[in-house]
Amino acid sequence: MRVGELSRRTGVPVPTIKYYVREGLLPPGELTSPNQASYTDTHERRLRLIRALLDVGGLKVAAIAEVLRAVDDPGRPVHKVLGAATERLGARHAEHDDQEAAEAGAAVGELIERRGWRTDKSSPAAADLARALAAMGRLGHGAFREVLDDYAEAAERVARADLGYVDRKVAVEDLVETTVIGTVLGEAVFNAMRRLAHVDASARLFGTRPEASD
Amino acid sequence: MRVGELSRRTGVPVPTIKYYVREGLLPPGELTSPNQASYTDTHERRLRLIRALLDVGGLKVAAIAEVLRAVDDPGRPVHKVLGAATERLGARHAEHDDQEAAEAGAAVGELIERRGWRTDKSSPAAADLARALAAMGRLGHGAFREVLDDYAEAAERVARADLGYVDRKVAVEDLVETTVIGTVLGEAVFNAMRRLAHVDASARLFGTRPEASD
Repeated sequence: MRVGELSRRTGVPVPTIKYYVREGLLPPGELTSPNQASYTDTHERRLRLIRALLDVGGLKVAAIAEVLRAVDDPGRPVHKVLGAATERLGARHAEHDDQEAAEAGAAVGELIERRGWRTDKSSPAAADLARALAAMGRLGHGAFREVLDDYAEAAERVARADLGYVDRKVAVEDLVETTVIGTVLGEAVFNAMRRLAHVDASARLFGTRPEASD
Repeated sequence: MRVGELSRRTGVPVPTIKYYVREGLLPPGELTSPNQASYTDTHERRLRLIRALLDVGGLKVAAIAEVLRAVDDPGRPVHKVLGAATERLGARHAEHDDQEAAEAGAAVGELIERRGWRTDKSSPAAADLARALAAMGRLGHGAFREVLDDYAEAAERVARADLGYVDRKVAVEDLVETTVIGTVLGEAVFNAMRRLAHVDASARLFGTRPEASD
């Protein structure tokens, strides 16, 4: 199909499509004449993935380029690609080197030990977790660590559901792409659900029905 | 304290502190002479909150300003402030008006009904959830809706833990600030945990230990 048709099907403007090609997010179409390129269903699918990561996942263009390179890198063992794809989603933050950082790091190590998680204590996700806990500690919410096991059980439940879905529904060749979609969009799904469940839980706790927002 | 001391205590550079004051995120210090201002512990605490929302929560300065206005707005019923604080965290995205959007919206309505959640079907969190599900549908993962109840149970568990923590640990005057911290940093905590649990679940499923990342 021509770029105009690709644009119509996906709702992405032609100049934006050309920008994604220049940035290496989308492979170029096959040239059918000096100034006309032909695009396939594979382009359409990749374009939808880019838009989902951008619009729903909130990833930046540079982060998407990195994730897509991991998706396209053949011959890497599944769990390594899984690691690479998800590690690259971790934000980079200002580093602190204080008591809260040390305590939070220790708490994360103990949690991983206690849950028997087969994961590296030095992984980027563990570092992200420690960073969030340290920030809470600095705000006077070190006691939040007491609910970590509730969070961990909920996270295990979600991870089982995710992997079960992948195992049942996904062809091997789509595994890595699905992991990226599941990690980024699944995060958006869970975060929205948590906010809904908060409204419900606080309505029950405070005995009120939420009124229409004003 | 002077601005230099505030900077030393929080690790935030003086020009950055002055920028936050100009942007209305941080109240100005009390002028003790024409070019010297005095800051209090309240300033220090607010500054730590700003940094946590920025560094760990990944919020933009404009979003933080909105959230802090909700925190500082007195006399609003708790659940309304809760609503306002969390609603403002929802991202604004490109809108679609297609079959996937309609199906996802219906699925969210049914989920809220089925779980008996006391929440508004037209709330921003419900819209965010529908948007994420619609994006998955467009990528061929409409079947992901089958695991929504697993996600919902995990979200309920996390929400109960959050509200339990607030109920046990938090003074009424800190309630709104804690809600903001819990929503933004709690999200970072859960997302990092989900990634850790994924590594563990896939190590179990594929029968491998994750190797050190290369």
